[in-house]
Amino acid sequence: MKRVMLRVAYDGTEYCGWQVQPNGITIEEVLNRQLTRITGTEVAVIGASRTDSGVHAKGNVCVFDTESRIPAEKFAFALNAGLPQDVVVQNSCEVAADFHPRHCDCHKTYEYRIYNATFPDPLLRRYSHFLYHKLDVEAMRQAAQYLVGEHDFKSFCSVNTQVKDTVRRVNSIEVLAEPRQTAAEEDAKLITIRINGNGFLYNMVRIIAGTLIQVGFHRYPPEQVATILAAKDRAAAGETAPACGLTLIEICYQESDYRKGSEE
Amino acid sequence: MKRVMLRVAYDGTEYCGWQVQPNGITIEEVLNRQLTRITGTEVAVIGASRTDSGVHAKGNVCVFDTESRIPAEKFAFALNAGLPQDVVVQNSCEVAADFHPRHCDCHKTYEYRIYNATFPDPLLRRYSHFLYHKLDVEAMRQAAQYLVGEHDFKSFCSVNTQVKDTVRRVNSIEVLAEPRQTAAEEDAKLITIRINGNGFLYNMVRIIAGTLIQVGFHRYPPEQVATILAAKDRAAAGETAPACGLTLIEICYQESDYRKGSEE
Repeated sequence: MKRVMLRVAYDGTEYCGWQVQPNGITIEEVLNRQLTRITGTEVAVIGASRTDSGVHAKGNVCVFDTESRIPAEKFAFALNAGLPQDVVVQNSCEVAADFHPRHCDCHKTYEYRIYNATFPDPLLRRYSHFLYHKLDVEAMRQAAQYLVGEHDFKSFCSVNTQVKDTVRRVNSIEVLAEPRQTAAEEDAKLITIRINGNGFLYNMVRIIAGTLIQVGFHRYPPEQVATILAAKDRAAAGETAPACGLTLIEICYQESDYRKGSEE
Repeated sequence: MKRVMLRVAYDGTEYCGWQVQPNGITIEEVLNRQLTRITGTEVAVIGASRTDSGVHAKGNVCVFDTESRIPAEKFAFALNAGLPQDVVVQNSCEVAADFHPRHCDCHKTYEYRIYNATFPDPLLRRYSHFLYHKLDVEAMRQAAQYLVGEHDFKSFCSVNTQVKDTVRRVNSIEVLAEPRQTAAEEDAKLITIRINGNGFLYNMVRIIAGTLIQVGFHRYPPEQVATILAAKDRAAAGETAPACGLTLIEICYQESDYRKGSEE
């Protein structure tokens, strides 16, 4: 028996999120189905991040146990041969038998992308949130700094969750603005909110994005974000920004936590 | 009566190209249908570039004549309200009544994108051609320089065309390589072949891309491109690279050719 870790990239547009559910196809389900097919026994992966419907990933993580004789590092090739084109395993390796991707310390990086222009760009529409009114990127940057550090992020957590401890640490938030050439506009921009932290509450990145958008529209000043944080009330923050703009970029574990042999 | 020019961006994935045809939905058809709906009379656009099935655009151009009282610059807003999400008009303006987008001098810019990595990136798959074997970008750059200038591009023209004059001028070809972060790979790259010229033969950019890929794989040296050009034989060049990698970036006309009033 061995435990294998997969790093998985997907275009979430056509999926009802990560976690298996009765109402539609999910990423977890297509992975389980394909693993079961190639190993010949029922397999159920354990995911690191149960991304929502429509959210994308470049490096989500999951593990599974198998007695298959396929070498751990060959699972990426074996799986990709049968997976749909919008789900691609980027890497596979053996990990410690007791490594659990949700019960170990880690850093996660997410990006929330906003296309800010007069008209949408059809080549960006699946992977960004379109906004017509011009955003003040500098104000968004100032506002973001109030969120860096260890805080109670209760105001930035969906009420549809049972989680008790809402304290998390945000290591960094960058707000990047890239000019985009269009057929007829000077100041179109792709704005990326890149956020790294030790864990995120349900909808936390999308509520942060929604709140920074309000600041970018001058609906309230950057300092207001400190007040929103102190309120510990979901109603104080901005709305949850749409799923299509969000991509889970990577999850980094301590090598000593997952490295095969570290348990010996 | 006025002539209106549109600059149109589209994700070509779901379309059978630009030009109306019996076997599937096209970009021209969705534009004609929506223009007919909002003006109340039958409209047929004249396109600048009849892109193939699966090819994308950021700035294709077309014109149409109308007696509608909608101001020319408002057509972009009026059309976008009813167009599918993957076809977006970026700009509309009135042009000279005799301006024809295929019978005027212009410069066109195309980009052909290649994702060169161990595994595909699902977020790039619709807009790039995936290649696993590593490409020598420097060799591709050297090869590209043989194509710059005025040449008979008969070797780089599909045999499925009746065109007689196969001389065109390529103003520039750049081969750009951008490192891409992946969950598990150091040297993944997005390679963009950016080409500007005064007109392109049927499949010319895709045959150039296919030929530069052969050079990138060291199947023949960069100098071979001069021999291929001199052969004036389609069989001498590389294969036609897939449509998904190709995007028509922009078409630039002389302002005096299309500016309303220039005919007076």
